[in-house]
Order: sequence, then structure tokens, then C-alpha cells
Amino acid sequence: MMNAVVTVRGLEIGRGLPKIIVPIVEETTDKIAARAATFEGRPVDLVEWRADFYEHAPDTERVLDTLTRLREAVGNMPILFTFRTAREGGKKAIGFEAYTALNKAVAASGNADLVDVEIMSGDDVVRQNIANVHAAGGFVVGSNHDFAATPDKESLIARMRKMQEMGADIAKIAVMPNSSADVLTLLTATAEMAEKYADRPLITISMSQRGVISRLTGELFGSAATFGSVDKTSAPGQIPVEQLAALLKSLHDLA
Amino acid sequence: MMNAVVTVRGLEIGRGLPKIIVPIVEETTDKIAARAATFEGRPVDLVEWRADFYEHAPDTERVLDTLTRLREAVGNMPILFTFRTAREGGKKAIGFEAYTALNKAVAASGNADLVDVEIMSGDDVVRQNIANVHAAGGFVVGSNHDFAATPDKESLIARMRKMQEMGADIAKIAVMPNSSADVLTLLTATAEMAEKYADRPLITISMSQRGVISRLTGELFGSAATFGSVDKTSAPGQIPVEQLAALLKSLHDLA
Repeated sequence: MMNAVVTVRGLEIGRGLPKIIVPIVEETTDKIAARAATFEGRPVDLVEWRADFYEHAPDTERVLDTLTRLREAVGNMPILFTFRTAREGGKKAIGFEAYTALNKAVAASGNADLVDVEIMSGDDVVRQNIANVHAAGGFVVGSNHDFAATPDKESLIARMRKMQEMGADIAKIAVMPNSSADVLTLLTATAEMAEKYADRPLITISMSQRGVISRLTGELFGSAATFGSVDKTSAPGQIPVEQLAALLKSLHDLA
Repeated sequence: MMNAVVTVRGLEIGRGLPKIIVPIVEETTDKIAARAATFEGRPVDLVEWRADFYEHAPDTERVLDTLTRLREAVGNMPILFTFRTAREGGKKAIGFEAYTALNKAVAASGNADLVDVEIMSGDDVVRQNIANVHAAGGFVVGSNHDFAATPDKESLIARMRKMQEMGADIAKIAVMPNSSADVLTLLTATAEMAEKYADRPLITISMSQRGVISRLTGELFGSAATFGSVDKTSAPGQIPVEQLAALLKSLHDLA
């Protein structure tokens, strides 16, 4: 099956080499903008703002102000807005109403191009969030995380299919391996999803040092993007972007 | 399960990073010795002499003379002697008697440390070959190749278990992927074999450009060695040794 490509500010997610996403996990507006400025000239395709780290989140007005600063700092680079909830490993708890309102305001601002929506937030909440982002002209990254274990292949595929069926433009899943077999389960689920079911890009990650190979093999097995680090990481196993870019190119050239 | 380590001339196959094996596929004695001399100072752990490429093979006397020249050229580097038969993708057809006699004479010479024995040669032939190599103090690499396809996981494991049960010291399997799922089947069979059944080193390869990741992930999934190239390759997908060594080290350091 050919996966549709998501094109955002000229970046084609789902075509060619996996795109490199770098998360910002700073607490203050100044640090967030300063961090973004360090991406200049480095192999970063897309910035993810992990707004749950921001000291004043989820205060909508302050989040929007900081997002404006971030947009100025990154220029035309696509921004993925992510409020990762405590339920899925994020820094802050948030009610579903506040979550929905925040994502809606962010999408409406036009300063974020993609908004992360946690697919296990309850179907009504998820549908509302996706509709709001789409109404504002943004893209949705449906997401699911398991920091303790790797579900079996069927469950992984079922979650990605659910994201797709509910209308997410990109389906993202990140899980923790407890063995090398778990790493292969994630990769096999990715390849099978990409081959049989997906009509849009996937982003899949087997976390931690053990799963690091999954951050490199997206082109082969069907993951359209990979999270790397510029000095700071937001999840275990992230590779510094220069090394990540070099390894992605090596594997591309060898294959 | 802990896999036993095969130690040959100080090289520990089955411990630490995957060992880099470079095949020699030249036709004349002078070229074979000259090729081996180019390995000096390069990241080569073990040389495989693909004797089926040699113009006078399987003439025992000439093979032994050339092997002496090769030993002089490589010094103390371990040598794997391989007469790859036409049945498994090699250059020359050979009868089972001549195959057995040649392998026996080579092992008895002491100039080859490991001898490749194709495990599908018939059980009596295989047992005789393994006994002969062991009687001479050598190690056996049991091998099986499929240049057309990737058997299912159960078949791959069954073949490696058969090699082990018949007494091969290292079990090697190389198969052709026709999809990325096939690459994952080979890797999954390797990880499961290493985890559940193996008590000795494995070498597994998913061939061609598509399978190139299998040449890099031995440390993670349980393959103890990887075939690389110095200028010439003997099978599709082999990576130049300098790049191979750098990539193996990168993956080791990241994991």
C-alpha cells in the first residue's frame, strides 16, 4: 500500500529519508526560544514543542505567547505541538476539557502545523480534538505510548489502525522493549501496518538503548520520522542529530 | 541461554562486537596471496578463502599449496576455508567424496582454522566432514544458503538447530529477502535461536541491499560475525570493512 505523504511547509513526511524531529523540553519562554535558535544549521527537519514542560502550561494565553516566540525562533521550520499528559509519561496532569481547549487554541493560532493527540483519551475527546485541529487547517499526530512494555504485534497494529480510522494524519506509537524480541515485535508491526493497512505516514519507536535500531530503520520498515536530540533528550534512546543524520544516510546509501 | 565462545588464534567469536570476515574470491594463487596482503592494517578479523573460485580447485595438492601461501600472507589471522558448492551458490560442482577429502586434507594441514560444511550435504557426509575437521583440531562452520527466498522462522530455526545437533561449532545461515518482512523474519529467527536454543555462536545474514541491516545488528540480535568487503564482494549486500567497522561501533556505543 502506498502511504499518503503529509507535506507541511515544504517538508514531505512519508517520502524519502525519515525526517528528524527534535523536542524542546525547556521550562521558560526564554529558554524555549533560545533552544530553538540553536537548531540553526543543524540537521533538524521539524521541532516538537513539549509544552507540558513549560512552566505556565496549560495557561492558554501564555502558551500562545510562547508559541509565537518559538515560531519567530524557528522561522519556517514545521512545529509539532505536544502537550504530553501525565497519563502517557508527560510532565503534567490535565483534564480532557483543558486539553481540548488548549489544542484547539494552538491549532487556531496557525503557529503550530501539527498537533499531537493522544489516542487513548477517549473516543469523543479524540474526535473533538482531531476535528478542531483539522478545522484550523492543521495536521494531527495520533499518539500512544507505553513506557513499561511492548504490546504484542496485533495490539500495536490495532492501535495504529484506530488512529488512522479516527482521522489522525500521522500515527505514532512509542513503546518500551524488555528484550531484543520486543524490538523486533515493534519493527514487525510497523512493516505489517505499512504494507497492509496504512494509507498515511507512521512514526514508530522502540525506546531506550535497546531499541535504538528502530530510530534508524524507518526507511526500511516504514517509519516516516525519528526523534533525535540537540544536547537534551526527551525520551531514552534519542540519538544526537548529527550522528542520526549520518547513520540514516549510511543506511539509505547501503540499501 | 549463554552461547559458548569459539576462540581461534585469540579471536573470540561470540563475545563482544561481531567479528568482520572478508572473503577472498580470486582465481590464482598469486592473486589470492596478493589480496590477503591488502588486508594488513584494515579492520579484518578473519579471512574466508572461497576456494571454489580458485582455478585449480578441488585439486588437493594445489589447494594445500595455495593455502600455505595464504597462511604466510595473513600471518596469525584466522582462516575460514570454504568450498562453496554449486548446490549452494558456489562456483564449482563437486562430488561428496571429493568435498569430504578436500575438507579433511585442509583441516589436517593446520593452515585453516575453521572449515565450512554445508549442512544440507546429507547427514552421513556432514557427520564425516565434521568428525574429520574436529579430529584435526579445527572448528566447523555449519552453513546453509538460500539465494532465492527466506524460509519461514520455524524452518530457519530448525536448520540452525540441526547444525548444532550435528556438531558444527558455529551455525551460519544466509537467505535472500523478498520484502522487509523477510528481513525481520531472519532477525526474529536469529534472536529466538540465540535466546532459546543456541549454545554456540550463530552467523546469520539477510542478503542483498534490502537485508543490509542484518549485517549491522549482530550484537543486538545474536549474530557473532558479519561478512564485509575489501574492494571485492562475494555476495550481494556486503559492506566495505571500514564503513562496517564504524557502523558496528556506532550501534555498540548507542546501545
